[in-house]
Amino acid sequence: MSPPFLTFLTDFGDTAPATCRGVIWSILPDARINDLTHDTRQFGIRDGAFLLWSSLLYQPVGVHLAVVDPGVGTDRRPIALRVTRGDHLVGPDNGLLIPAAERLGGIVAAHVLDNRALWRAEAVSATFHGRDIFAPVAAHLAGGTPIVNVGTALDPMDLVSLRFAEPTVKDGTLRTSVLFIDAFGNCRIAGQPEDLASLRGRLDASDRFTVRIGDASHEIPWQPTFGAVAAGELLLYEDADYAGLGIGVNQGSAAERLDLAHDAQLIIEPT
Amino acid sequence: MSPPFLTFLTDFGDTAPATCRGVIWSILPDARINDLTHDTRQFGIRDGAFLLWSSLLYQPVGVHLAVVDPGVGTDRRPIALRVTRGDHLVGPDNGLLIPAAERLGGIVAAHVLDNRALWRAEAVSATFHGRDIFAPVAAHLAGGTPIVNVGTALDPMDLVSLRFAEPTVKDGTLRTSVLFIDAFGNCRIAGQPEDLASLRGRLDASDRFTVRIGDASHEIPWQPTFGAVAAGELLLYEDADYAGLGIGVNQGSAAERLDLAHDAQLIIEPT
Amino acid sequence: MSPPFLTFLTDFGDTAPATCRGVIWSILPDARINDLTHDTRQFGIRDGAFLLWSSLLYQPVGVHLAVVDPGVGTDRRPIALRVTRGDHLVGPDNGLLIPAAERLGGIVAAHVLDNRALWRAEAVSATFHGRDIFAPVAAHLAGGTPIVNVGTALDPMDLVSLRFAEPTVKDGTLRTSVLFIDAFGNCRIAGQPEDLASLRGRLDASDRFTVRIGDASHEIPWQPTFGAVAAGELLLYEDADYAGLGIGVNQGSAAERLDLAHDAQLIIEPT
Repeated sequence: MSPPFLTFLTDFGDTAPATCRGVIWSILPDARINDLTHDTRQFGIRDGAFLLWSSLLYQPVGVHLAVVDPGVGTDRRPIALRVTRGDHLVGPDNGLLIPAAERLGGIVAAHVLDNRALWRAEAVSATFHGRDIFAPVAAHLAGGTPIVNVGTALDPMDLVSLRFAEPTVKDGTLRTSVLFIDAFGNCRIAGQPEDLASLRGRLDASDRFTVRIGDASHEIPWQPTFGAVAAGELLLYEDADYAGLGIGVNQGSAAERLDLAHDAQLIIEPT
Repeated sequence: MSPPFLTFLTDFGDTAPATCRGVIWSILPDARINDLTHDTRQFGIRDGAFLLWSSLLYQPVGVHLAVVDPGVGTDRRPIALRVTRGDHLVGPDNGLLIPAAERLGGIVAAHVLDNRALWRAEAVSATFHGRDIFAPVAAHLAGGTPIVNVGTALDPMDLVSLRFAEPTVKDGTLRTSVLFIDAFGNCRIAGQPEDLASLRGRLDASDRFTVRIGDASHEIPWQPTFGAVAAGELLLYEDADYAGLGIGVNQGSAAERLDLAHDAQLIIEPT
Repeated sequence: MSPPFLTFLTDFGDTAPATCRGVIWSILPDARINDLTHDTRQFGIRDGAFLLWSSLLYQPVGVHLAVVDPGVGTDRRPIALRVTRGDHLVGPDNGLLIPAAERLGGIVAAHVLDNRALWRAEAVSATFHGRDIFAPVAAHLAGGTPIVNVGTALDPMDLVSLRFAEPTVKDGTLRTSVLFIDAFGNCRIAGQPEDLASLRGRLDASDRFTVRIGDASHEIPWQPTFGAVAAGELLLYEDADYAGLGIGVNQGSAAERLDLAHDAQLIIEPT
């Protein structure tokens, strides 16, 4: 008999994540909670969405609580989603949950959290819905409360959407951009290895590409793994953590080396 | 049947918190441990006391282990407290546990941890009482050992005390100071919304206040939540995480903007 | 009945540790996982080895998963070790596991993880063996799979070795070096209090030593604990976290004060 399983992602610091876990364990003492990260870039809705999208596929079916919520206390809605795989996602209606919900098979039900009977019993604050609304509702869902009980049903088409940038392949060139920069400084860029392969009809280890970023130009090999290039050297690779194209430096930071930030544009073509 | 519940707060880095958890789980394999934070400012007894004070209220009744302990190995006493709510608090007698103990209903018993039978069986070090004394005693308390068994009873009046600064309201002015700066740069200042309301006999959204810090003066509105002001704008608000008055910046850092550090003085009056 | 127990150490950032925990809990829902740290210096094999060496002794017998792996995807081998105490260690064959394995009584069996039936069922990536190979194998071992099932037996003599630097005592002088710098800036240096005692035939609180680092020279007392010197003062002490000689500053950073980095050389003699 498995314990109820939740994951938890925020951009909170200090004791705020622990306060929310305390609320969950007060309702559901045997819950297992997997903290995905609480170091999401502050107010970084897209970063949070990207991390959920990349990590939830590897988690047991359960309740996934995510709070990156610059609009807390305004009229943005608190929501719960049920997806095809059987998971529930709980968080603000600001796009944060959408890419992960789609990767888990798509949304089969969406509800506003307007059933106050499932909120914390005490007065609800205007600035800490993680503790007062999202955590208790997530605990109730993990404990078996049906999603129809959390509040009014919504049309999934009415949810705030969020889409990651897409690359374009044209005239033998891949135009792409930086989707996410990880803690090592590896840059996940829009696109898949197939996009790169389409430029020259194949993609083999050591194939070289010219990567243009603003006025700068870099010649970078495609390699299967970091250890295939010398320490300090750049590579293009398939990013296994984040399921797509990456630019990295073996034992270094590609973001620093190439001065890349979120949404930076890159033009890639075979050398 | 709920598992035994502990919380754990330190200013330790590296593997030291995990070493303590290993000691707890060696004694009590089914314990649930909620790590409140291990990023307390180093040697920041008041910061630790503030975080315990703000978070423990939301935790299940259990054993709360807290170690911010610049006096480790000196003659400061290791203690356990029992509070009215039924929790036990374990840590050094340096004030760290006192505000939280009072918020949980007040101390009903205090004991020095001088029963060495509950310490780690091996030699006790002079610099890592978290591992050698506090963690094993906390595990025994969580497993049902009565507090009278941990050592000699103390008069709670003999404990080292710690009080947060209090504001003063006088001549239409609130004189207060910074109690805590959170990871976002929000500043929790001494006082409650009622103190601010007392200045003009009411407190409504968008009411404006003049906040003087040293020679600088800022006009800041009272708002219920961050999203009520534009990104980058200052607000006075009720801090739900920390149960009192806060100064923040929507999607920014008030501490940076106003150059505020712990104990900085602020004078607030209606504009 | 204790739950299966694992520890987990990496130099991963973002959600990668949580993704690995999700894989473990998918296989073994009742596993207890103690995260030792995921803040190991990136690519710092020796730092990881040092932290495992110092922490595992205090952990319950279990499966210890450790991934600091700059060679991921190259021909470095993924391995599992069984040690005399009864634990299993799982990670890359790059030296990371060796000092801890020796401290837990020595290696009694070593196997390459070449039984793909225990890997993640889907395609295995070239850059995230933590998720695809190490975590699932660790979960199977924790669930009771015998180590002979994880793959081909290895001669422990063929494993990549890793040894920490040793001090030398000669002509009344201790020549040593920095093994590890902790989050406080305390420096663990090669050697034991006995080495220092051998220089003058005794070692008592307040005994003074001259410590030469490059051209600089410092007079530093031996003390049992930080609180024995004033805030901001240097001391030589027995580091309980890391089982050996330490140089610290009470409520400060010795690494900053003395400009010490890993492997910095120190020459110590009685003043």
